[in-house]
Amino acid sequence: MSNDRIYNFSAGPSMLPLSVLETAAREMTNYDGSGQSVMEMSHRSKVYLSIFEETKANLKKALSVPDTHEILFMQGGATFQFSAVPLNLMGDGGSADYAITGNFATVASKEAKKYGTVNIAASSEDRNHTYIPAQPDLKLSPDAKYFYYCANNTIYGTAWKYVPDTRGVPLVSDMSSELLSKPVDVSKFGIIFAGVQKNMAPAGMAVVIIDKSLAGHELPFTPKIMSYAVAIEKDSMDNTPPAYTIYMLGLVLKWLETQGGVAGMEKLKTAKAKLLYDYLDASALFSGCAEKAARSDMNVTFRTGDAELDARFAKDASAAGFANLAGHRNVGGMRASIYNAMPADGVTALVEFMKDFEKNT
Amino acid sequence: MSNDRIYNFSAGPSMLPLSVLETAAREMTNYDGSGQSVMEMSHRSKVYLSIFEETKANLKKALSVPDTHEILFMQGGATFQFSAVPLNLMGDGGSADYAITGNFATVASKEAKKYGTVNIAASSEDRNHTYIPAQPDLKLSPDAKYFYYCANNTIYGTAWKYVPDTRGVPLVSDMSSELLSKPVDVSKFGIIFAGVQKNMAPAGMAVVIIDKSLAGHELPFTPKIMSYAVAIEKDSMDNTPPAYTIYMLGLVLKWLETQGGVAGMEKLKTAKAKLLYDYLDASALFSGCAEKAARSDMNVTFRTGDAELDARFAKDASAAGFANLAGHRNVGGMRASIYNAMPADGVTALVEFMKDFEKNT
Repeated sequence: MSNDRIYNFSAGPSMLPLSVLETAAREMTNYDGSGQSVMEMSHRSKVYLSIFEETKANLKKALSVPDTHEILFMQGGATFQFSAVPLNLMGDGGSADYAITGNFATVASKEAKKYGTVNIAASSEDRNHTYIPAQPDLKLSPDAKYFYYCANNTIYGTAWKYVPDTRGVPLVSDMSSELLSKPVDVSKFGIIFAGVQKNMAPAGMAVVIIDKSLAGHELPFTPKIMSYAVAIEKDSMDNTPPAYTIYMLGLVLKWLETQGGVAGMEKLKTAKAKLLYDYLDASALFSGCAEKAARSDMNVTFRTGDAELDARFAKDASAAGFANLAGHRNVGGMRASIYNAMPADGVTALVEFMKDFEKNT
Repeated sequence: MSNDRIYNFSAGPSMLPLSVLETAAREMTNYDGSGQSVMEMSHRSKVYLSIFEETKANLKKALSVPDTHEILFMQGGATFQFSAVPLNLMGDGGSADYAITGNFATVASKEAKKYGTVNIAASSEDRNHTYIPAQPDLKLSPDAKYFYYCANNTIYGTAWKYVPDTRGVPLVSDMSSELLSKPVDVSKFGIIFAGVQKNMAPAGMAVVIIDKSLAGHELPFTPKIMSYAVAIEKDSMDNTPPAYTIYMLGLVLKWLETQGGVAGMEKLKTAKAKLLYDYLDASALFSGCAEKAARSDMNVTFRTGDAELDARFAKDASAAGFANLAGHRNVGGMRASIYNAMPADGVTALVEFMKDFEKNT
């Protein structure tokens, strides 16, 4: 880490690889001899379309997306998808299964209720979302149009360690906080979506990976910009796409390739999370919030049990160059988000800082 | 213009001021000593919120937005607003007046038909959208929930030179291609919106300026992300905003201030457009497409009358560093989009190039 940069543990928007930012800076006023910034390019121009196509191809390759599925770049982040999913899949008078394992699944399920019947297939609310329901505990509705779950719960620091078996019902997953952090068998999913501001790019876009056979059944009052069928037909360009964000994703994907792709990221994330969890398990001061079996490698939640001490820790850490460690305002405590671009050194340094803090408390 | 940069006449995304791009490049890896890129900042952090608030305040000042109105930053560009406007304003079984003066008003009116009755208050289709209907020709419906028009028609190169008097019906205007290019009396409007990728910032956002009294009446199936009431209540942060795009808008607004604000831009745009139109009126080869009274200062459409010659002109111009002069694929001919960031020198140089082309043809 260059010595004028901080370690940023923000849950999103979050760190980007320094080399990516340096490339973006270098290319800002003149991309590859084109005489213009990527920000200034017509999205229909040859020079921009080559960036767009390369980015899409590299994402397809990175996640081994099968030809049955299409990659879409849509504005509005994951929140936009909370509406788009039911509008496109629910059908008239339809129902869907939602697994409620945190804040964003809850928000998504509330939005879906505007468009159909929502069955709560599982909920971890009884233990304050500190765990993930097991497969046998999922109440599946055979006539559900889709089964929805949030793969990684950013606020609570939990992650699904298995892909639900829904007996043929299309699987929809919000992977905002984990896409590109490990391999995923895309063929098992009807729709995967992810707000890009965690592992992928600056805020302002979601990546959607959709089984093409699911498109074309939207409710009649679906806004055109939310229609997956239109987005597929127009290759995400029915209107002007968030062109620069797509370029940034392209730079991140090139960096990812040099790091061993998603397999490389999986090794790195496992190692980084283990460093932090091992210390938490050994610490007399700090303890992890999530149950061990459900711990997220992306968002590590912990606390001292004393709200004032938690606040002091976050403040002292920030002053020492470890930013954004305060937990989400809904839950308190601390949270270290350690996405792809957080170097292992950042986690090592944080653990050292925590040890010192513990010693001096 | 630095000699490695082209003159980019794209209709959008389009040129940004070079000094703005240089600042963005300089601040890319470390904004103002914060140790992070603006792209990496938590949108809830103090350092980011100060950028957000300053940008909003500077936009309010630049356009003299009255306190009755709220400024929103929403993803999805103008196309998103084509749905959001009727969803929020149409009401159950309501109707709205649309003036059809080009492609984007047509697209917006089609979208509105999903949500209520659309009255065609005026149309310039009879003369291929080369003119703007006059006030006496507007067929106003007294019970319309709003009157909608596109202030500048990017594809056809026409602009409304007056603000319609709708006898109290709220006025909604798509100002994507002209906002920030001249003063506007915001108090006359219920909603002004603008995709930012022309005069304001990179693609991926719309600025919405809304009379707060119009919010809170959305149809029950309105996606939450499209609710103006939610956006107002949450200050455009119900979900993660397009944070970097807002920062870029902030840089553009600071540049605008050094250029004399919107009054300075109006002088500049009038002078730039006059240069081009005066030459077109004198030329034996080229002629303007729009009727004189309706000519846009932002998008100057012209043609030779010979499609092959038009294509050769656009190609030769591009080779000489004047990019994106081919007209929209729907209409052909040529189009020079001369938004705020196009320097007067660029237009002067283009006119010289056109004169040479005419001489050698």
